[in-house]
Amino acid sequence: MTVRRPQVSVIGSGSRHEATALEVGRLLAERGCVVITGGLDEVMAWALRGAREAGGTTIAIVPGELHADANEWADHVVVTGIGHARNLAVAASGDAVVAVGGSWGTLAEIAFAMRLGRPVVVLEGGPAVEGVPRAASPAEAVDLVLEAIAR
Amino acid sequence: MTVRRPQVSVIGSGSRHEATALEVGRLLAERGCVVITGGLDEVMAWALRGAREAGGTTIAIVPGELHADANEWADHVVVTGIGHARNLAVAASGDAVVAVGGSWGTLAEIAFAMRLGRPVVVLEGGPAVEGVPRAASPAEAVDLVLEAIAR
Amino acid sequence: MTVRRPQVSVIGSGSRHEATALEVGRLLAERGCVVITGGLDEVMAWALRGAREAGGTTIAIVPGELHADANEWADHVVVTGIGHARNLAVAASGDAVVAVGGSWGTLAEIAFAMRLGRPVVVLEGGPAVEGVPRAASPAEAVDLVLEAIAR
Amino acid sequence: MTVRRPQVSVIGSGSRHEATALEVGRLLAERGCVVITGGLDEVMAWALRGAREAGGTTIAIVPGELHADANEWADHVVVTGIGHARNLAVAASGDAVVAVGGSWGTLAEIAFAMRLGRPVVVLEGGPAVEGVPRAASPAEAVDLVLEAIAR
Repeated sequence: MTVRRPQVSVIGSGSRHEATALEVGRLLAERGCVVITGGLDEVMAWALRGAREAGGTTIAIVPGELHADANEWADHVVVTGIGHARNLAVAASGDAVVAVGGSWGTLAEIAFAMRLGRPVVVLEGGPAVEGVPRAASPAEAVDLVLEAIAR
Repeated sequence: MTVRRPQVSVIGSGSRHEATALEVGRLLAERGCVVITGGLDEVMAWALRGAREAGGTTIAIVPGELHADANEWADHVVVTGIGHARNLAVAASGDAVVAVGGSWGTLAEIAFAMRLGRPVVVLEGGPAVEGVPRAASPAEAVDLVLEAIAR
Repeated sequence: MTVRRPQVSVIGSGSRHEATALEVGRLLAERGCVVITGGLDEVMAWALRGAREAGGTTIAIVPGELHADANEWADHVVVTGIGHARNLAVAASGDAVVAVGGSWGTLAEIAFAMRLGRPVVVLEGGPAVEGVPRAASPAEAVDLVLEAIAR
Repeated sequence: MTVRRPQVSVIGSGSRHEATALEVGRLLAERGCVVITGGLDEVMAWALRGAREAGGTTIAIVPGELHADANEWADHVVVTGIGHARNLAVAASGDAVVAVGGSWGTLAEIAFAMRLGRPVVVLEGGPAVEGVPRAASPAEAVDLVLEAIAR
């Protein structure tokens, strides 16, 4: 049988973090990871774009009821229909989670990921949460989550 | 028609915060609020107990599939069956939210409440979250949330 | 301690079923039940109105993110934010369920209630589902669900 | 950009329907569809197996909190943590839905799919629901859903 590829959820928001998200997505795809996001704009779009452009596989988990809610970089669209509660699915679906920027929704996802024991790394510029490791660069963040998944 | 009474969700966890939760529940009930929690143990139980003992009305919003999952202080039990995603319903159902102690689940609830524009107050001892007001005592927390609801 | 009153969820839709819903709500309240609905219009409103007018307690479990989404007959509003997935909470929160009219959403609620082992009665005019008991009148439906709860 | 491949959710349960589910999964993959199921056993496993063995892509949307809850035929695992409410996500994520056998959970998924306007086809042996088209064979079911998606 095929071994399932590692899945990394990239969470966050903020247009000023898009270039960083692109880089995180690209690096994750280059390392063989499937990239998952909440499927909408900004960080959620650019992380998928980075992964797609690097030949990776991308999954959008959207809060609404339509496939068309997802950005164009999603290979597969999971339509949840459950609004902000889909943040739980985004956090839970990652074998690990990387936060790039972000606000309250991102904080909810970090909290759920920690609650469920998923490794989380927050890139500088993202929410400061006591007990959650931080990384100074996309490369460091990707290294950290891949090490965590390998353990 | 009857005017709906204010609903305040009390969130948090930790057995050392139970006496505080009891006091918060009592004060909210004395001020005419319906008290809502996630319906399980510790803070979720003692806040309902405080409200009940003061003659108030209490609602448990439980994550599992059984009414019996709720603690004995719940007048009404909302059985969601959606696991940690019920944290969204707990946060959203409050006209305001008070946090007493707590860990990752509480952080998720604070984040959702802020995302949805619900006034939140964290009692000292609860998670420190930038941008979220804090209170030094149950009385101060209850004053703050009732002022916020009145606005 | 106080014993929790029985909770009956009234589900359904269709403006031509409003008078029936009013009667079901009234009878349930007269028999001491708390009445729960999805909190919006038509059957969801009239069942709560019937219960309220009979002096009963009513709970709306709404799919959106606002308390104001609930109809005016709700004593308490549970705001889930999870869209159609709140149908699971409506079904699960009833110690028993009565269907009055209804379409696809109602069918989902009947299915969830059966899945979770909640007694269900469908009033004539509601969806025909193999294996689900039917009643010819509000009085018969209320008798059946109260007998089922008592068992 | 890449065009997203059609996604078809295969729902249902019952060990006697496994061979049919295998065939449905195989045919969908041969026609270029991504196959989605609830990710557990019986129909949910065999539909993914059929798709995988035909070289297709498979997605499991599981109700629990662990990737390991998914069967071995899932290429990608979406971990929702929301219990039976994940049935909404399974129904909504399909551009169309095929039911193979099934009980109450399947009925909830059919109802949600119809509510959201997703084309649904029930194979003979699955729940009879007024207004939902039926098919006599996997080939007919797959033809019907692909025609519906193309419209």
